[in-house]
Amino acid sequence: MTDYRADDYLYMQRALRLAEGATRRAAPNPGVGCVLVNNGRVVGEGATLAVGGDHAEIQAIKDCLARGESPRGATAYVTLEPCSHHGRTPPCAERLVAEGVARVVAAMVDPYHEVAGRGIAMLRAAGVEASAGLMEAEARWTHRGFLSRVERGRPWVMLKAAATLDGKTALLNGRSKWITGPEARMDVQRLRAAHGAILTGSGTVLADDPQLTVRELQVAAQPWRVVLDGDLRTDAGARVYQGGGALLASCETDEGCLAAFRERGVDVLALARRDGKADLADLLKQLAGRGVNELMVEAGAGLNGAMLQAGLVDEIVLYLAPSLAGDAARGLFAWPALDDLADKIELDIADIGKVGRDLRLALRPRRV
Amino acid sequence: MTDYRADDYLYMQRALRLAEGATRRAAPNPGVGCVLVNNGRVVGEGATLAVGGDHAEIQAIKDCLARGESPRGATAYVTLEPCSHHGRTPPCAERLVAEGVARVVAAMVDPYHEVAGRGIAMLRAAGVEASAGLMEAEARWTHRGFLSRVERGRPWVMLKAAATLDGKTALLNGRSKWITGPEARMDVQRLRAAHGAILTGSGTVLADDPQLTVRELQVAAQPWRVVLDGDLRTDAGARVYQGGGALLASCETDEGCLAAFRERGVDVLALARRDGKADLADLLKQLAGRGVNELMVEAGAGLNGAMLQAGLVDEIVLYLAPSLAGDAARGLFAWPALDDLADKIELDIADIGKVGRDLRLALRPRRV
Repeated sequence: MTDYRADDYLYMQRALRLAEGATRRAAPNPGVGCVLVNNGRVVGEGATLAVGGDHAEIQAIKDCLARGESPRGATAYVTLEPCSHHGRTPPCAERLVAEGVARVVAAMVDPYHEVAGRGIAMLRAAGVEASAGLMEAEARWTHRGFLSRVERGRPWVMLKAAATLDGKTALLNGRSKWITGPEARMDVQRLRAAHGAILTGSGTVLADDPQLTVRELQVAAQPWRVVLDGDLRTDAGARVYQGGGALLASCETDEGCLAAFRERGVDVLALARRDGKADLADLLKQLAGRGVNELMVEAGAGLNGAMLQAGLVDEIVLYLAPSLAGDAARGLFAWPALDDLADKIELDIADIGKVGRDLRLALRPRRV
Repeated sequence: MTDYRADDYLYMQRALRLAEGATRRAAPNPGVGCVLVNNGRVVGEGATLAVGGDHAEIQAIKDCLARGESPRGATAYVTLEPCSHHGRTPPCAERLVAEGVARVVAAMVDPYHEVAGRGIAMLRAAGVEASAGLMEAEARWTHRGFLSRVERGRPWVMLKAAATLDGKTALLNGRSKWITGPEARMDVQRLRAAHGAILTGSGTVLADDPQLTVRELQVAAQPWRVVLDGDLRTDAGARVYQGGGALLASCETDEGCLAAFRERGVDVLALARRDGKADLADLLKQLAGRGVNELMVEAGAGLNGAMLQAGLVDEIVLYLAPSLAGDAARGLFAWPALDDLADKIELDIADIGKVGRDLRLALRPRRV
């Protein structure tokens, strides 16, 4: 157990802040943050660039040199263990040694099989004081998408839903524009921008014909838009399939049926069936295989309910509008009637806030 | 417009605090608070006793004298205009004059027709500096039950409901024990203790056979327990009718059918029908006539929905448990399907809190 000083926490917090801003652009790599400190002063900082570009450590070193400062004898704070392997870029651990960095404090070991402790070992072998574990819980949260993909073979799944305070998403006649206010809808745009892919179901495409793109915000790349349509009920002319970046996940394998989608540049994920329904775990596995770290679910009661019941949701962001629509309106989560209250899905409230007039809850399904 | 000093607000706040503690015992009278200040020191304070006992001003004067202090030349802060009429007790305005009080600061004029400004006038006629209007909004909130009964001829109505985060109060099979945690249920006991009557519907009595009494808390008097049972579907043996203090509100007028209730000491309110249903406005009017200032509704989706749709709910306290029961479970508010989202009931969020693991929201239906 390494002892850390108060300063160490402050600099790691700064590195985590840098990491947060890099998560999306770095994907499928982890968006790491790095802060270089020499003689009690920050002399450089950086975060992972897009794939093929610099890792955080290299960015921090370049920043340091650009400032006319020296990394020699410095401490490097990194949110994830420096890499030890030749990927698209040379190993960061080697470069830190070469620059004469004296101490490396990592928030956590990189679970990626090519690293997995070898970065720390490489540093120590070169005489650098290296440790991992400072603010590990915070770093695990910051890197949750990357960690989920590497450790569990599926993306981190955040389900977004919006309803009235009595849990209604739309009227019986389907009308749902707008339940929540403009501030909540803008918040949804920010959430979309922070995710590598957006998943919806065929029902939502048929009912609302949404685009599911990030609008009103500048983004380097739009998230993938994934439609789960096991029985291929949607039309390739739907708005979600236009403009590139769309994926169709279906159990339909007839290429004649899929041709119209392929012509529009829509990639097709062939899904297995499980108990007669499209296999959701298989879908997540395939998305992870395509490098999706963070998946946002924006679907109707059917897919929302199925994802939750399958235990595939890590986080729910629920917007509750201060209004009541009555029992005849449509609900949030569809699954067969429960016999026992013990079978209801238990959540932890991670955060309570307000956006505009609406309530915004961050929830975590409890693992049984 | 009277100018008030910072001190005036502080003393009035203290008077309002005293008033809050007296609301329940004073009913149907307003639970007023009074603070006597002489030469910058509090020399006496008091709040309204139970009906027939002292009003707040008299209690404060007695407290002052018991302390060996003098009310002569003092300022009296009262949350409601001192009374000017001989009711069960002599006029407080007269007594304030007789004790030589120099200044009376009232938060608001008493709208009760026997007072309605005459208390202030009586004081001024006797040379006392008297005003009303300091912290009036706060006083209107503190005295909301009394004011509602006097000004609108019906009690202040607070509807309590508890549900999962997807708005479900019970499973399809009726199971509802327990959706919320013990802290929320204890909070409900406190709410009951603060109300003059609890209203439920025949459906809840038939399904749950509740007692609707205050338990686990000492109360001077149990609230009335009112069952709305238009078609007389409940049995006089139900627990809610036992032990006195129960009211049956029904459209049934056949004394033979009502005999079993009367034998148990249950009072019967004869309700008119309106569009084939028991007239809720009539029910509230009759409860006001019996001196109920604050009514708490603890009912099922049918009565809850009808009260809301009729615009008869002033406040909702909604407990949301961090769990999900799914669309097949039972909902909060029943009314016919809406055609237009503009017809949903709009609320203002007055307060957000947590009790135990549950969310607790205080909501106010918007007046259209």
